[in-house]
Amino acid sequence: MSFWTPTASTTTEGRFSVTATRAMCVGPEDVEFVMGGVAQAMAVDAAELATGKPLLWSTIQFNAAARNHQTIDIDVIWQSGGRSLSQVRVDVTADQKPVQSMFAALGARPGNTKQFIKMPTVDRPENCPRKDDPLIQTEGNLISEFDRRTAFEDAEVGLEYMWIRPVKSMPITAGLLALTSDFMLGAHRDTRGGTSLDNTLRVFSVEPTDWILSVTQMSGFREGVAMGVTHQFTQDGRLLSTSSQTGLLPRK
Amino acid sequence: MSFWTPTASTTTEGRFSVTATRAMCVGPEDVEFVMGGVAQAMAVDAAELATGKPLLWSTIQFNAAARNHQTIDIDVIWQSGGRSLSQVRVDVTADQKPVQSMFAALGARPGNTKQFIKMPTVDRPENCPRKDDPLIQTEGNLISEFDRRTAFEDAEVGLEYMWIRPVKSMPITAGLLALTSDFMLGAHRDTRGGTSLDNTLRVFSVEPTDWILSVTQMSGFREGVAMGVTHQFTQDGRLLSTSSQTGLLPRK
Repeated sequence: MSFWTPTASTTTEGRFSVTATRAMCVGPEDVEFVMGGVAQAMAVDAAELATGKPLLWSTIQFNAAARNHQTIDIDVIWQSGGRSLSQVRVDVTADQKPVQSMFAALGARPGNTKQFIKMPTVDRPENCPRKDDPLIQTEGNLISEFDRRTAFEDAEVGLEYMWIRPVKSMPITAGLLALTSDFMLGAHRDTRGGTSLDNTLRVFSVEPTDWILSVTQMSGFREGVAMGVTHQFTQDGRLLSTSSQTGLLPRK
Repeated sequence: MSFWTPTASTTTEGRFSVTATRAMCVGPEDVEFVMGGVAQAMAVDAAELATGKPLLWSTIQFNAAARNHQTIDIDVIWQSGGRSLSQVRVDVTADQKPVQSMFAALGARPGNTKQFIKMPTVDRPENCPRKDDPLIQTEGNLISEFDRRTAFEDAEVGLEYMWIRPVKSMPITAGLLALTSDFMLGAHRDTRGGTSLDNTLRVFSVEPTDWILSVTQMSGFREGVAMGVTHQFTQDGRLLSTSSQTGLLPRK
């Protein structure tokens, strides 16, 4: 149970609910809204609870955002699958209005594990400068729930390495990886303050770690739109996830 | 109009239809089915036709597959957006049964273009060995519609560079990039013959080119499941797309 995890309805099959709090939100106080990554974390937790299986992949489409204090309902709708695999769609509403929708596959089959992507060599998080987000942080909102450190940043090649960990210790879950992977638009000076259209998350493992390293490589910017790929690692270099996003660049 | 492009219904708003042919299919003759990438290409073409906007991003969930000769209906359902951007869901059915569903964002805004991802140095396609797919190809099916050449392959590091072009010349479209990016599971000896669960495609450009280079880096294999990332380039190194997939490894 993380601070965003919804509760199963006792009356409606596949429905989960949670009330939005400031800790789930970003943005100025008068327009604070639930961050897309938190919405995805809620939907991922609901899908895992509904199916009893671990998340393999999910893509969420951000159509709108829930506001602070709204009631968020999450409906897990079975699409296909069998004993070892489930494919679902998850619809998210805020005070009964649609805000996001997600596809996901969950499950596992016996098989080998092999990691191809390697973690780059980086300095320890304790030695890296703290990363702030003046555009979206306020006292007690989501940004204050995480400690972030910039390990490397090169805007010319579109690359950033960022350490991130929850201020209050919590286990590594697919939901936490969804949430933390949604910081992608913070990885480049030209994308900060932009608007994510989606997030695709592929979970490789949920190995325990204190800090997560997010390695973001922007693919490119096209006509006011950014796209990029993030890999997340444990502190000792085990792959946690592969994710990617498309987002609108901020209007200058 | 490509060989998979569906036709708009004259009676139902947002509906497009096409009849499956062998050229859209893979697999043995008695169980030939429409390849997932072709289904995504149909859905992408329908979304572009319905909105009048170019595709930025789409993710398709593969729940089942249409069979040869079936009637495929594609419904484009508006989710959100305005003048410059449209977000849609696209539902695909075969003889009225759901087979796939897709999210997409389409549009553009004024802004700069900057490409960060570089094409690796590779030999010319004419000098590379032809790539065949004995597991899924038959006379006249989809595989015979494309000429593919292996430019580089290293299973130990999970990396492949593949040239691909349509045998019958056609323009570079988002649909063609969707289709050709769905060859990802063919990029590694251990994933060939596997089953894709989804495909996420982000379109950077549709610059003209004769051959497309698909650079696939597998992220890793986990409990019978593969995940990886592909970048597609024109022959002179301009980025076309960034895509990624999760797939079930073939049972040995």
